[in-house]
Order: sequence, then C-alpha cells, then structure tokens
Amino acid sequence: MLGKKGRILSGHRPTGLLHIGHYEGTLRAWAAMQDDYDCFFEIADWHALTTGYDETATMPERIEQIAIDWMAAGLDPERSTLFVQSDVPEHAELFLLLGMVTPVSWLERCPTYKDQIANLRDIDGAGPGFGLLGYPVLQAADIVMYKANVVPVGEDQLPHLELTREIVRRFNNFFGGIFPEPEALLSDFAAVPGIDGRKMSKSYDNAINLADSVDEVAKKMKSMFTDPEKLRMGDPGHPDRCPVFTYQRMYNTPARVDEIKVQCESGELGCVKCKAEASERLLEAVGPIMQRRAELAADLGYVRQVLRDGAGKARAVAADTLAEVRAAMSLDSTS
Amino acid sequence: MLGKKGRILSGHRPTGLLHIGHYEGTLRAWAAMQDDYDCFFEIADWHALTTGYDETATMPERIEQIAIDWMAAGLDPERSTLFVQSDVPEHAELFLLLGMVTPVSWLERCPTYKDQIANLRDIDGAGPGFGLLGYPVLQAADIVMYKANVVPVGEDQLPHLELTREIVRRFNNFFGGIFPEPEALLSDFAAVPGIDGRKMSKSYDNAINLADSVDEVAKKMKSMFTDPEKLRMGDPGHPDRCPVFTYQRMYNTPARVDEIKVQCESGELGCVKCKAEASERLLEAVGPIMQRRAELAADLGYVRQVLRDGAGKARAVAADTLAEVRAAMSLDSTS
Repeated sequence: MLGKKGRILSGHRPTGLLHIGHYEGTLRAWAAMQDDYDCFFEIADWHALTTGYDETATMPERIEQIAIDWMAAGLDPERSTLFVQSDVPEHAELFLLLGMVTPVSWLERCPTYKDQIANLRDIDGAGPGFGLLGYPVLQAADIVMYKANVVPVGEDQLPHLELTREIVRRFNNFFGGIFPEPEALLSDFAAVPGIDGRKMSKSYDNAINLADSVDEVAKKMKSMFTDPEKLRMGDPGHPDRCPVFTYQRMYNTPARVDEIKVQCESGELGCVKCKAEASERLLEAVGPIMQRRAELAADLGYVRQVLRDGAGKARAVAADTLAEVRAAMSLDSTS
Repeated sequence: MLGKKGRILSGHRPTGLLHIGHYEGTLRAWAAMQDDYDCFFEIADWHALTTGYDETATMPERIEQIAIDWMAAGLDPERSTLFVQSDVPEHAELFLLLGMVTPVSWLERCPTYKDQIANLRDIDGAGPGFGLLGYPVLQAADIVMYKANVVPVGEDQLPHLELTREIVRRFNNFFGGIFPEPEALLSDFAAVPGIDGRKMSKSYDNAINLADSVDEVAKKMKSMFTDPEKLRMGDPGHPDRCPVFTYQRMYNTPARVDEIKVQCESGELGCVKCKAEASERLLEAVGPIMQRRAELAADLGYVRQVLRDGAGKARAVAADTLAEVRAAMSLDSTS
C-alpha cells in the first residue's frame, strides 16, 4: 500500500456473464484505479445467496466466468487482490459481530431492501430471508475487513455505503476506533444501451457480453434497434434517439461522430452502414478484451490459481483485522 | 460416539455465576447424560452479545467462571467436549449460510424474540439488533454443526428448538439431507426457590451460588423466608407454602421430610432449627461441588487449557460438517 492513495474494496455478485455495460460502467474505472489504490476485488458469492439460495449448482461456473471477465477487462492479479468472498470465512465472523450492534430498524428502512422485497423472486412463498435483510451488514463486513477507505459505487448503492458508515460509527463507539469510515468514489458514466435500446441488462436479453465471439457481436450489432422514424436510407434520422449513435459516441472519434450526426440527419447515411461501422469500432475497442477472455477461458487452472492466491492474500489481512476486533471485544480470552 | 445413544449439544450464555437453581435444573441432568450421550457443552459468548454487546469487558472472567461452575458440577472434560462458541469460528459461517434460507418472518414471529424485545434493556435507544433477531439461527447453527440429535431444553426453549427443526427441514430440502432434525429432551425439574421464596434468579439477588463459601451459604439459609404465618416456635406452620420445606424435600431423606412436615404443622419444630437442618443437608449435597469449584478457581491455567482442548475437538467436528455443507451448496470451487 506504500505510495498509494488508499485502499479500495469493491466487487460483483456472480450472477452471470458481464457485458460491455459493466465494462464501461465499472470495470474500466476499476482497472484504471489499480496504480493509485491498493485494490481488493471480491466475487461476492455469499451475497448472491441472499436471493439465489435455491440455485447454487451453477455457482462454481459463475465464479470462474466472472473472474475471467474481470481479468480480461484489466483487473490485474499482480497489482490487485482478486478473491472469492466465501474463501475468506473471516467475513462471516465479522458479519456476525457487526450484526450485534446493527439495529434491525436500520436494515428494514434501507431503500434497497424495500426495493428487493418488492421485486423478490418467489422461491417457495417464504418471503425475504434473514440473509437478505443482513445484506448491508455483510457488505459492511467486507469493506471494513480490509479497512478500505474508498469504495467505488454507483448512485444507487449510496444508501448501502451510508449504512456501512453508520455501522462503523456505532461499532467504533463501543469498541474504539478500529475502522475507518469508507468514502464513496462516485462513478459518472453514461448507461450503455442494449441492442433493443433499453438499458443493457442480462434480464432484458439485450446485452453484448464480454464472452461473445466476434461473430456474435457483429450479429447483435446488425440487429440493433435504431431510430424508429428512419425506415430506409434517405429518411432523415434522429441520432439522439438512436442507440447505435450512442455506440458511435462511445467508440468512434469525435470528428467522425460529428460527421455521422450530419449524415444521419440528412438521410445520407443508412442504418445498415452505420451499424456496420459502429460494430467495427466496438470490436476494435473491446476486441482485445474478448481475445484475452478467450485465452483465459482456455486456462481455467490459471484462473483458479489466481483466486486461490488472492484468497491467501485477503485472508492474511482479514486475520489481522479480526484479531484486532476480537481483542477490542474481549473475545480472545482462551487464545 | 460408539455405543452411545446419540449426540447432545447444549450450553449457557456466560451472563454470571451459576446457582443451585441451575445445578438442580440443568447441570445435574447434563452431568448424568455424559455416559449415555456424546456431549458438547458450549459457552455461548456470541449469544451473550445479542443483548449485551456494550459490556464485553467482563466477558473473559464470565467465561472462566462458567467453565469452573460446569466442571465443579460434574461436566467432565475427559468424557465431554467443553468449549467456547467464539473459539469455533465455523459457527459464524454456518450461521450466515442458514440465515440465507431462514425467512425473516419466522424470526419475527418467534415468541422468545417478542418477549426479548418487550424486555430489552435500552442501550442507546437503538432497539433490537440484527444479532438478536438472528438468535435462533445462531442456535440452530450451533446444534446442527455437531449433528446433535438430542437437545436438553426447558419448556420455555421449545419454540427455539422447533425453529431449528424448521430451518433444518428447509436447508435439507434445498441441499440434501445433511442435518438430522434434533429432538427435544425435556427436563422435568421443580423450580428452586431463592432465599426470598421467589424463583431463584441472579436478577432477584436471592440466589445461592455454586461459588459461595460454606459461611455464605449458611448465612443465606439463615436469612431465608419461611411461612409468614409462623412467627415463633409453637405457631403451627404450613410447609407447602414454605421455601425452606422445599429445600428439605430436595436435600433430606423422605422419612425425615415426613417427620418435619408433622413437626412444623404441630408447631413443635421452629423455623430457626429447621433452616439450620436444611442448611446442613444442602451443604452435604452441594458442598463437594463448592469444594471442587474452589480448587478449580485456584487453577485457572488448567481451566483455560480445558477450553482450548475442547475448542480443538469441537473445531475438528465443525470443519468436517462445514466441508460437507460447502460441497452441498457448491461453495467449494476454488478449494
């Protein structure tokens, strides 16, 4: 951590393949932080159980695939610590201890919890689980275990981070100032549209995944929705309503984007040609990631070794923190 | 476990010195079970945090004292496993995993939780903690970690054990029949009255502790309440309303108890003499426990070693169970 600005903890639940929306919105920023911060990236498999405890059979594959996505996108095991949450059982103990000082009412009032309850997939009519209610406590344990002082978050995750800060304050109040209050590092990225123009999301089946082949990407880009009022070449288009134009802005040069805007509005540029160009530029930008991804996917032994090594590094830090916590709480009398 | 009827898990929260009410109500029965069952006795320090997280400084001493009480009362580290809950961090992981499948509604409806909320000591206006809500989940984790099939409980703890059985059924339903459903072994003991005639309880300050000296016991017995209508020797007494008579029944021979009844009712036997006799019989019965207790209290190094050894034995079983649980939940992909 010497010479770095601080320590970061962030992560993803292993719920499926990552897409270019994740890359543009999160992974690219994480990758860029690795020189400035001591980064811990966690594959939060226990968090995935809070709603998906009935579908664990695919967990190992989901963990592998997200690790591959991460490394392909530039998360570098030489510079950062990549690990699986459940490989660091110390998190469970800190979760339990933080839970003692966390009022139930704080968790019940959490807007994310209310939202999750409202949209809960019905497993067997059981309603929300104790684990789901405790989601922010587990998240707080993950963050403070590494004494992370910076957490990169989107706007929607701010309530959780605020809850972490409140839990930290309460814990420190009883047991001394063990933990720093983590600060949010807000990411400001434009949402990436899916091929149907809606927000890119696995659940809409409109995503371009980092795991897609070049052919799949080209095919998806070809089928992308465009301005519904531009039906044939010659019709004047409205670039600001067109998801393909968003891709041009993301992956083309500013000068060419200006040209495209003019050519689209005049009707000179047809959608088929425009999409082909966007597809090319996209593949130029994310092609190397897809290539690295394919290489990593062919070497699962290496990927698993990275996660084992990461778990080792994470556990070393976690063991130190937990020893400090136990001592502060007088829970180490027989050791 | 060879040749035994099954495995037992039971325990106490380390909330203070144990008294003869605990001995007659629980410890004696536990001690007697050790030949028939493979017994795990847990000092539940994490459970004590669910309401007492602001007073952990005295925890080490409370743990030591309860271990001494237990061993003095006949819990035998050669035959049984005596350990401290927090020395087996595997419990925290199983607590977390069981919490995923435990509906919040089951916990909110638990009569013990409602009762605890109603009587909650106000720490700082925060209300019940997440840990308190999860009390039965942690208890379930403790029991099933050792695949205990028998749990000795009092009537009041039956709802918790029923909840454990429900959690087990739900877990087994998703992940295969890993855990047995533990059965209650109901203890049928008469409540021991305190020196003021009410139920013996630390909070009433009416207890005769196993840690008391012979002189303290004699003094407490001398000050014991008797039949309020029997003011002086010669007055006819009502043994069935007299706490001292309860002690005679507990610690005197049946023949002598019959005599005392007659002599009290006739007025022939005065309370002072009756109390002195009860005191003698009590000390004959629990004197050896008090003696062993004093010896153990003088050898804390041994007591701590017993707990360390117990933790080692408990962790060996816990590690096996947890490996099985992780495999069933597909949470062992990188190991």
